[in-house]
Amino acid sequence: METDVNTLDNDDAIDYSLTWTEGGVVAPGGFLASGVAAGIKRSGRRDVCVVAALESVPTAAVYTQSSMAAPPVTLTRKHLADGLARAVVVNAGNANACTGAAGHANALAMAETAATQLGCEPHDIAVSSTGVIGVSMPMQAVLSGIREATAALDSATGDDAAEAIMTTDTFLKQTAVRVEVDGRSFTVGGMAKGSGMIMPNMATMLAFLTCDAPLSSAACDAALRAAVDASFNRITVDSDTSTNDMCMLMASGAKGGKGIEPADAAFDAVAAAVAHVCTELARMIVRDGEGATKFIEVTVRGAESDADAPDAARSIANSPLFKTAIFGADANWGRVAMAVGKSSAKVDQDTLEVIFAGITTCRNGMAVEFDEIEATEALAADEIEVIADLHLGQGAASVWTCDLSYEYVRINGEYRT
Amino acid sequence: METDVNTLDNDDAIDYSLTWTEGGVVAPGGFLASGVAAGIKRSGRRDVCVVAALESVPTAAVYTQSSMAAPPVTLTRKHLADGLARAVVVNAGNANACTGAAGHANALAMAETAATQLGCEPHDIAVSSTGVIGVSMPMQAVLSGIREATAALDSATGDDAAEAIMTTDTFLKQTAVRVEVDGRSFTVGGMAKGSGMIMPNMATMLAFLTCDAPLSSAACDAALRAAVDASFNRITVDSDTSTNDMCMLMASGAKGGKGIEPADAAFDAVAAAVAHVCTELARMIVRDGEGATKFIEVTVRGAESDADAPDAARSIANSPLFKTAIFGADANWGRVAMAVGKSSAKVDQDTLEVIFAGITTCRNGMAVEFDEIEATEALAADEIEVIADLHLGQGAASVWTCDLSYEYVRINGEYRT
Repeated sequence: METDVNTLDNDDAIDYSLTWTEGGVVAPGGFLASGVAAGIKRSGRRDVCVVAALESVPTAAVYTQSSMAAPPVTLTRKHLADGLARAVVVNAGNANACTGAAGHANALAMAETAATQLGCEPHDIAVSSTGVIGVSMPMQAVLSGIREATAALDSATGDDAAEAIMTTDTFLKQTAVRVEVDGRSFTVGGMAKGSGMIMPNMATMLAFLTCDAPLSSAACDAALRAAVDASFNRITVDSDTSTNDMCMLMASGAKGGKGIEPADAAFDAVAAAVAHVCTELARMIVRDGEGATKFIEVTVRGAESDADAPDAARSIANSPLFKTAIFGADANWGRVAMAVGKSSAKVDQDTLEVIFAGITTCRNGMAVEFDEIEATEALAADEIEVIADLHLGQGAASVWTCDLSYEYVRINGEYRT
Repeated sequence: METDVNTLDNDDAIDYSLTWTEGGVVAPGGFLASGVAAGIKRSGRRDVCVVAALESVPTAAVYTQSSMAAPPVTLTRKHLADGLARAVVVNAGNANACTGAAGHANALAMAETAATQLGCEPHDIAVSSTGVIGVSMPMQAVLSGIREATAALDSATGDDAAEAIMTTDTFLKQTAVRVEVDGRSFTVGGMAKGSGMIMPNMATMLAFLTCDAPLSSAACDAALRAAVDASFNRITVDSDTSTNDMCMLMASGAKGGKGIEPADAAFDAVAAAVAHVCTELARMIVRDGEGATKFIEVTVRGAESDADAPDAARSIANSPLFKTAIFGADANWGRVAMAVGKSSAKVDQDTLEVIFAGITTCRNGMAVEFDEIEATEALAADEIEVIADLHLGQGAASVWTCDLSYEYVRINGEYRT
């Protein structure tokens, strides 16, 4: 799933280049990670992880917008108010959501245990949980898992940590990229988990990024927000939104040199690297959407306004009828027309154009003759591009989603039981 | 699927009673109907129908809110501007949507042909189409179907007409009710088709109602709008909305007597009968949702405002994760919590209560001990009630939906091909 794009050049004012590199969250200097099996998941797999800096470092995060936000989200929001963190502890298998006052106490106990082990204050610890909602946390297992994980911290590989945050994910999601700018070199790494309930803004989705550039807390925050807008907030699996989402960026500054603020020239390069890692992780999440057999990029262009484009694109990408058609390799452009029609975007039915995998199926709002066999073959690919051109203006946006398959129904009909 | 409620008494100021009766759209006096097989559907089943009054009569309709509204919708909106119609002609198998100028000409030709046969003006004819989007109408078949159907009109039964509007529907949807008020007796009948793309407001859904009360055009409109708000706009199958929806009410006045305006005492009784028929048809549509194995009533109560309740109820009812859980007979209240959390309704996570089929699974936002085996058994029923009580105020609303099964994916992955 890693990108094989080795070098990207940007055409902005400042020159920088991005190079893929190994290691995930420990690729940047100044970070340690580990993941252990604490017995929270029934499967016996790894389920507790820690990602730690060597001291408290600038950190930013964005969170679920659900009004049912879980205790770990509430706690982390409080702990990161000062823009600093030493480490994040994460467990999978139990979301610690809808768990009342005990849930809050348990999230705090996770932070306190990690802080004792690492020799820092509890408010320097971010806490994150994912899994089943409404079940008390098995705290004995969780806390001994945290103790074990902090003892196992090393800088060799992020694999164990990335594995420990998986729930119904079928593959490990991590990547890292090196950015060269103005004679300086920084690395950004990250790991994430999906894979159902993926919908802007911030779906059941955890992502933890690390960076060795000397970003200030404000620079961390600015880079992360821009990156999330262009990546995680552009993906949707099933329109559902979770109670536990969190995306976090820690900046160790291990590479030293002059501190980087949002107004500095080097900031754009580091922000591009953060956006690149977020984009790669977001694509992996969609590709691993529950039951997904295909990755779909839905682009709406020619929208009258910039706001119309993502609205129409999401309406298409969230339509169960559209998603099942792609699952069936059916160039059913009528469902694209239906979906843009029900969106709040301005649409002129006499100008709509729909292109499936390079094949124009509808122009001026009407069917175009196309080779159905060719289309079916093109739609059998595992990556599909669908374009709706409204021909009304310059607004454009892309959204990534996956198809809706039998397997989605099976996974979610049987998940809890 | 018919209601077996024989007599309903209301507790309002005016006394009336409702009694179920046979006959569908021809149960009320003054209507004829027919349905024929014109060769539009590949299956060779009935696909063209006509419902006609003996002269032009007061008629009202509500339409899809899609900006991709199909030519028959645009035409009918124009033809009913004067509040009068003689007949409606409907075809299934082809939606005449996304068909450009030819589509408009074809819709008009359908009205003209019916008008010639019935000896009225084209603007007295409503036209409705449902089926595949973006394919030219096979006009020779359609027009000869209309001629055949007008020749076959009779008042014996609405069955043929109700059959001719079906697409992926698995059963015929029609009902009728007699209302007694103040010594007068009126009948309201109706037929409908579903069954995918069902979402407020007005999904792929056609419904045609008839009535022999002497309603004015204004009374028709008022009765229909109130009824649709309380029925068809409260159902959702998959959050998708169609290009062709229409719900229409014709009032023949065949029962004679003093004309009925919205302010008259008898109006409330007739309006209640119209609402009853719409509600029965809406429930049938949900029960026949594509791939549905269960009928689900989602009620949100205790909402802070009246607007919050339907918003939260729809968020639950449209959640694929909730719908697959019900398919799996899983009392997964965490997904209800997630869904109310992502809605725009005000939610306090410490007061949420969730009840599945009479079993409280969550109280004060936390899990309640319940017998999982008992819950699984209760959720194996084919009609399920799920209540989310926000405990914040008096707002309440119910929405009807169905579960999301393997069969939904199969039907919609294979529909067009």
